[in-house]
Amino acid sequence: MSDPLRLGIAGLGTVGVGVVRIIRQQAALLSARTGREITISAVSARSKGRDRGISLSGYAWEDDPVTLATRDDVDVFVELMGGEDGPAKDATEAALKAGKHVVTANKAMLAIHGQALAELAESKGLTLRYEAAVAGGIPVIKTLFEGLAGNEIKRVMGVMNGSCNYILTRMENSGKTYQEIFAEADGLGYLEADPQLDVGGIDAAHKLAILSSIAFGTKVDFDGIQLEGIERVSIEDITAAADMGYKIKLLGVAQKTGRGLEQRMQPCLVPETSPLGQLDGGTNMVVIEGDAVGQIVLRGAGAGEGPTASAVMADVCDIARGWSGSVFGQPAASLETAQSAQSQAAAPYYLRMALVDKPGALAKIATVLGEAGVSIYRMRQYEHDAPSAPVLIVTHKTTHAALEAALENMQGTGVLAGEPVALRIEEV
Amino acid sequence: MSDPLRLGIAGLGTVGVGVVRIIRQQAALLSARTGREITISAVSARSKGRDRGISLSGYAWEDDPVTLATRDDVDVFVELMGGEDGPAKDATEAALKAGKHVVTANKAMLAIHGQALAELAESKGLTLRYEAAVAGGIPVIKTLFEGLAGNEIKRVMGVMNGSCNYILTRMENSGKTYQEIFAEADGLGYLEADPQLDVGGIDAAHKLAILSSIAFGTKVDFDGIQLEGIERVSIEDITAAADMGYKIKLLGVAQKTGRGLEQRMQPCLVPETSPLGQLDGGTNMVVIEGDAVGQIVLRGAGAGEGPTASAVMADVCDIARGWSGSVFGQPAASLETAQSAQSQAAAPYYLRMALVDKPGALAKIATVLGEAGVSIYRMRQYEHDAPSAPVLIVTHKTTHAALEAALENMQGTGVLAGEPVALRIEEV
Ligand SMILES: NC(=O)c1ccc[n+]([C@@H]2O[C@H](COP(=O)([O-])OP(=O)(O)OC[C@H]3O[C@@H](n4cnc5c(N)ncnc54)[C@H](OP(=O)(O)O)[C@@H]3O)[C@@H](O)[C@H]2O)c1
Ligand SMILES: NC(=O)c1ccc[n+]([C@@H]2O[C@H](COP(=O)([O-])OP(=O)(O)OC[C@H]3O[C@@H](n4cnc5c(N)ncnc54)[C@H](OP(=O)(O)O)[C@@H]3O)[C@@H](O)[C@H]2O)c1
Repeated sequence: MSDPLRLGIAGLGTVGVGVVRIIRQQAALLSARTGREITISAVSARSKGRDRGISLSGYAWEDDPVTLATRDDVDVFVELMGGEDGPAKDATEAALKAGKHVVTANKAMLAIHGQALAELAESKGLTLRYEAAVAGGIPVIKTLFEGLAGNEIKRVMGVMNGSCNYILTRMENSGKTYQEIFAEADGLGYLEADPQLDVGGIDAAHKLAILSSIAFGTKVDFDGIQLEGIERVSIEDITAAADMGYKIKLLGVAQKTGRGLEQRMQPCLVPETSPLGQLDGGTNMVVIEGDAVGQIVLRGAGAGEGPTASAVMADVCDIARGWSGSVFGQPAASLETAQSAQSQAAAPYYLRMALVDKPGALAKIATVLGEAGVSIYRMRQYEHDAPSAPVLIVTHKTTHAALEAALENMQGTGVLAGEPVALRIEEV
Repeated sequence: MSDPLRLGIAGLGTVGVGVVRIIRQQAALLSARTGREITISAVSARSKGRDRGISLSGYAWEDDPVTLATRDDVDVFVELMGGEDGPAKDATEAALKAGKHVVTANKAMLAIHGQALAELAESKGLTLRYEAAVAGGIPVIKTLFEGLAGNEIKRVMGVMNGSCNYILTRMENSGKTYQEIFAEADGLGYLEADPQLDVGGIDAAHKLAILSSIAFGTKVDFDGIQLEGIERVSIEDITAAADMGYKIKLLGVAQKTGRGLEQRMQPCLVPETSPLGQLDGGTNMVVIEGDAVGQIVLRGAGAGEGPTASAVMADVCDIARGWSGSVFGQPAASLETAQSAQSQAAAPYYLRMALVDKPGALAKIATVLGEAGVSIYRMRQYEHDAPSAPVLIVTHKTTHAALEAALENMQGTGVLAGEPVALRIEEV
């Protein structure tokens, strides 16, 4: 058997504790599978005294993660602190400069500094792995990077933030408003300290940016993502969408088109019978389409101690077996700068609006849509007591530009009672 | 860039042609991703003259796959001929003895000779990879082996034969009998030359045996699989199951229990709303449960040129990147001999029977079930014109032994009009 692989772990929160637990409990299995003993040399966290429910005896303690990362008895630095800058980035850089491989679960850091870190790692011939950063326990990085290496990737899609999916699912099941369910989720500790990371779609967009880079051979481009969170999703839209056979999901889609790289993270409608439509609660799903393989769907827990630690261990085991490869699937220096493109591809849209209750109101809307080249596939007008009439429209495929023009022209009709809502329907 | 990785490909049928096509069309992508050029030195098939719709110019031709496998200009032997013995096995052994890595899609060969081939490969420090052998384009070997390396695997399940799933789905949609749909599928060329491999469940069982070995660290044990094909699935059962909210699938389940390794491949009922229940047609699905990760579901095309070639290329790219690991996840010499165990775990069962139309018939059946300790969860008796009354029963969880005893005792009641059907309901 080869020499042990010695880890230094910085961060002993949910994920860090999970990793220590697996290494302690599955020592025999891990060495049978990798041909090496996997050991922990040292650990670090903010408060040394805190009871973490696991024994840390036998591991050196470092207050400073940078010191930990550069210890002589550390082969692999495992970064599980989080945060795009600060100690996570400092220690990761220090580790790479000191010739250590790095494993991290930190999507924020990779989405912002991934390119620079990849160049640093590759210049030193080191590995930087991050299976846990995207979709928790689902081995999606490995699937995209290795399992589908023979494919030109056509499209990557996913529901990758469990908290948002939990909120949307709970709204539908309870009939309560976004504000009510947000408060409930926050009370249950389901949201990040800065909830905007979750409900603003930022966390999910970090993940999408990472997947795009591997899928399309482009530099991570978080800023190129067309981003909208779930704050504006109303219970009225969830109910109306369900009535038409759809679910609303915070869906990320990345796709290379003739005009550039299209990356969107936004609430979309998906058919309720599709795999994405059936995804309830905190489960994640990633859909990958390749020219040879067709469509692959991966589903599993997107967060939590066990699933995330499982993904961290996949990276650790790969390194133990001598895995070598570039950080984003191709040498970082060869990644192209993404040309970010607004979505041009035609899609069907869902429109919900309230019309003033006058004869001819609906006809005016239909005319405006028709003049902009947007054709109506299905329409429902609901019974109502209010002075305005709720109307739902599902369009045929139309470009975003045509839809925008139609929405603009509606303003002049004088029949709108309030702002119309428009949501894209994603064909999955 | 390192030296090119030079392949010798034996077998230019559906899969072989797909592999050649990817290597020709995606040369730039493959070398960007692996850091090496991937080239083909030589190819082999039965008929040299056959038009295969691709150009083979530039590749040496060998009539004999063994000669191909041992050529000096071949680094990796790619076996795509099929068959558990014969040229596939001869050439694979010759390649390994000559110091070549091997990639194969041949589940039959691995299910029967996997242990011997793994020992041979590992004794030479060589790699034997077979992603394409299980579930076509779905990277399930990689997921189990690498992506979930930190987990103790609890259970592996899957629908892994597209032809069987096609037949069952078509029966349900058309209301036609097994015999009618079998003939239809055969006419469409959907079945193997020996259809028993498909409908007898053998092909799917080969795949299950391979997954079990990786999941549980045991030697491949095809003979230990409790095997039943789909020939006895009747349209009556499909209809009745649907009526109770279930689908019938040819489902493989492998599980390590206190008594040993339980491996079953048999028609089962699954809830129609579960991911497995929603799997229509030729798509495959594998469900893996690990102690840390929970449940991971993988779905994709289980066969066909593109998906299968995609999986072969994953292995080729891994080898190009210097992948090293044992064949079944642990050194072959350390794999345990599986103690095959009949399923002891309690499960609910579906029972369909016809009873003679006499007062008290149903009471007699209920009594027999109760006396054997089998309790009834749901029961339906259908209207009928015939002299016998169709009855459906879903039991609470019961052991197979108790169920067998009940079925045995029913014979003495004198109220059965024909053999009862019993199918396990799998909780997924
Ligand atoms: N939780 C999940 O399900 C999940 C899923 C996927 C990815 N991730 C990612 O995994 C990473 C860790 O997440 P987590 O949920 O485990 O976070 P967490 O529970 O908040 O734990 C963070 C840990 O980092 C330590 N830490 C913070 N600042 C430090 C510093 N300056 N020096 C040393 N240690 C410091 C904390 O120390 P104290 O304990 O002493 O405060 C704590 O142990 C993040 O990048 C997150 O995005 C998490
Ligand atoms: N097809 C799928 O979707 C699929 C999916 C997963 C795994 N697989 C596995 O992949 C393997 C190949 O399947 P396939 O569908 O590609 O089979 P196929 O279309 O029947 O092709 C078999 C190829 O092997 C060649 N061959 C047979 N005997 C030979 C011999 N003695 N010497 C040299 N060449 C020989 C044949 O030559 P000729 O062309 O000259 O007859 C043919 O090119 C099998 O192990 C199968 O189980 C297939």
